[in-house]
Amino acid sequence: MRPLRRAAIVAVGSELLTPSRIDTNSLLITEQLNLLGIDVVLKSVVGDDPEEVGAVLNAALARVDVVICSGGLGPTDDDVTRDVVARVLDRPLAEDERISKQIEARFAGRGLHMPDINRRQAMVPAGARILENVKGTAPGLWLEEGDRVVVLLPGPPRELKAMLADLMEGALKARAPGRSLVRRVLRITGRTESHTEETIRPLYGEWARAPVPIAATILASLGQIELHLSAGAVSRAETEAALDAASLQVIERLGVDVYSRDGRSMEEALGEMLVERSLRIAVAESCTGGLITSRLTDVPGSSRYVDRGVVAYTNDAKTELLGVARTLIEEHGAVSEPVAVAMAEGVRARATTDVGIGVTGIAGPGGGTPEKPVGTVAVAAVIPGLTRSRLFRFVGDREHVKAQASQAALDMVRRMLLASSQ
Amino acid sequence: MRPLRRAAIVAVGSELLTPSRIDTNSLLITEQLNLLGIDVVLKSVVGDDPEEVGAVLNAALARVDVVICSGGLGPTDDDVTRDVVARVLDRPLAEDERISKQIEARFAGRGLHMPDINRRQAMVPAGARILENVKGTAPGLWLEEGDRVVVLLPGPPRELKAMLADLMEGALKARAPGRSLVRRVLRITGRTESHTEETIRPLYGEWARAPVPIAATILASLGQIELHLSAGAVSRAETEAALDAASLQVIERLGVDVYSRDGRSMEEALGEMLVERSLRIAVAESCTGGLITSRLTDVPGSSRYVDRGVVAYTNDAKTELLGVARTLIEEHGAVSEPVAVAMAEGVRARATTDVGIGVTGIAGPGGGTPEKPVGTVAVAAVIPGLTRSRLFRFVGDREHVKAQASQAALDMVRRMLLASSQ
Repeated sequence: MRPLRRAAIVAVGSELLTPSRIDTNSLLITEQLNLLGIDVVLKSVVGDDPEEVGAVLNAALARVDVVICSGGLGPTDDDVTRDVVARVLDRPLAEDERISKQIEARFAGRGLHMPDINRRQAMVPAGARILENVKGTAPGLWLEEGDRVVVLLPGPPRELKAMLADLMEGALKARAPGRSLVRRVLRITGRTESHTEETIRPLYGEWARAPVPIAATILASLGQIELHLSAGAVSRAETEAALDAASLQVIERLGVDVYSRDGRSMEEALGEMLVERSLRIAVAESCTGGLITSRLTDVPGSSRYVDRGVVAYTNDAKTELLGVARTLIEEHGAVSEPVAVAMAEGVRARATTDVGIGVTGIAGPGGGTPEKPVGTVAVAAVIPGLTRSRLFRFVGDREHVKAQASQAALDMVRRMLLASSQ
Repeated sequence: MRPLRRAAIVAVGSELLTPSRIDTNSLLITEQLNLLGIDVVLKSVVGDDPEEVGAVLNAALARVDVVICSGGLGPTDDDVTRDVVARVLDRPLAEDERISKQIEARFAGRGLHMPDINRRQAMVPAGARILENVKGTAPGLWLEEGDRVVVLLPGPPRELKAMLADLMEGALKARAPGRSLVRRVLRITGRTESHTEETIRPLYGEWARAPVPIAATILASLGQIELHLSAGAVSRAETEAALDAASLQVIERLGVDVYSRDGRSMEEALGEMLVERSLRIAVAESCTGGLITSRLTDVPGSSRYVDRGVVAYTNDAKTELLGVARTLIEEHGAVSEPVAVAMAEGVRARATTDVGIGVTGIAGPGGGTPEKPVGTVAVAAVIPGLTRSRLFRFVGDREHVKAQASQAALDMVRRMLLASSQ
């Protein structure tokens, strides 16, 4: 039998086509398939409509080695997956007495009589292997059609999870290509997506032709760029080594702009640096409204290095809580580098910490002026022996400005700590 | 032209086929299409592989009236959607000078030179209508093939959202079937999902049989329950009226536990109440680490009522910044109702605001004790003439505890304001 290399995941259920529900089973299925070296090339969601399910199944079967379906195995009229698969693969359905008895026993165990409709769950297409459901009534099914495989799993996550775990040790493992796919996420700040791409692109060809080929994808999100590397080799250690080497090549080219090579967040990366250096931090925020402190304290154990945060939304609060001179605000405006520096110095002095952050800006939508439009944010940081500040112009709505400003502030401290330890 | 009744949504991007990313753009697209009476019958996710994208597009075009694609319009090599659609619909691509100039201007506005690769974003298939991107560089495209339509939208949610809003008023609206599916989200706090379900369930049958039938779904998330109502009628006004009446029935049964009948967030609901009553607020946080203040300041215009926030992570900070007596902390422990009340009173007195919030707790994973395990959070609020406090035991990891505690604190103030104005 050919190994299963390419997979499609099909989620069946009309509720998954509404604006408030999303198919998350496919994330678990993808994780497990990747561990066996099986790539997921397509995911689809389709409603409880036999014709649509049939069309999606046929389209998927034309392109992949294995189709994993979840959902639509229940006892009611709108559970159509079993019937559709039987039709698409042209297999007659027959009741499996052993399954009916198991379902009856399950109901009896709860003091209930099995409703007649549950008999549908015991209908099995000819030639199917039955996958036992230890967590519910609907059994799963494994069907082979030549070299290809169709797997039907129940929709409820706990039932699906248990059944998938069995497959990972059994039928799926037996057909796996035996090459394990590993992913690595590098996070980058301080450059645009296109500039990152231009710098990295020369590596793509080399990676693609390497003994352990590496695929790369660049993603832009607020205040950062992500570079996703993935590779698959027979040995997991070999794959990890190839990804380590590729990560180093990226770091050689992008330098300290790479703040994370294992997917960790900016606040985790900075937190680790503070712990390593035994430094404590205090934050003075205006337009970010507490977001910087909230991000810092999202990290378990952050109480070791976060002393306090002050959200000084008004000028009075800046003066009272942080000791920012009124004359400084009058002279430069509340949104200015000198005021940001005074905020950082003020909170640092009052908290007697090593590091202080000060951020003041206009998050919008109101409050902008021609000289200082919405998105103007002054960021300052003080560490022992070093003070920096910068005026940013961020683009986007209120939440985006807050997100970018918080990222810039944490990144400023990170870079200062790196510079001062060299 | 035939109206567009059936839609498929295709998300393009290899990262969306990994175990850690999910396509959420399709939720927004579904919501908007439904508002125009267009059903979504299929959703697919496909990687940055021209052949796979082509296969998915062809399969979708065979079954629906309109295909909405998101993603793959960026400037890099792995952005393939534009090229694939041109090939599938057999349209030559040519550079649109106006778009190149706009992208150049966008870079120039940030003091940058446009990298050459961005020129790809100006390539347009023959006969395509260009959808302007006010939030980014990649323009969207609208292509007609007989009665059918293919729409290409950029992947970043804020760019997609703005472009979709334009289509809803323009090209899509013009081709809508004219029966509008309206959804209403009620948000509920202070009860479990099953209690909400038990109380609401008697209404389901009545709603299903009404002249404008209403479908209901209950969804639980952190610190709140959502009740989604949806109905479709020829007249939008008739649908809205039916949903208004159903919402009132729910509010009659659940009372002030319903804090939002139009999907607005807790911080928006509370912000509006503060504005109506001309009250100002200050926040003292420990375990929530700034999250409460950050949520309050996520609301545009919140500078009218938010004075300050203090994140007092250490006992010293609680004493210095908020005037919490050391003896009170020694007597009751930092995580206690008396300390939470002292924090709320302290920040309110120092900020001279009307409302004060105090929150202190153990977010975990460390710091728990047998008497005060992880998840123990004391929440207090002070409004003119009224003080309340409560000790919560939340379940979940650090971020979940922070989220639930921030929700409980904002909700406490909301309920106190309601009680005091009666």
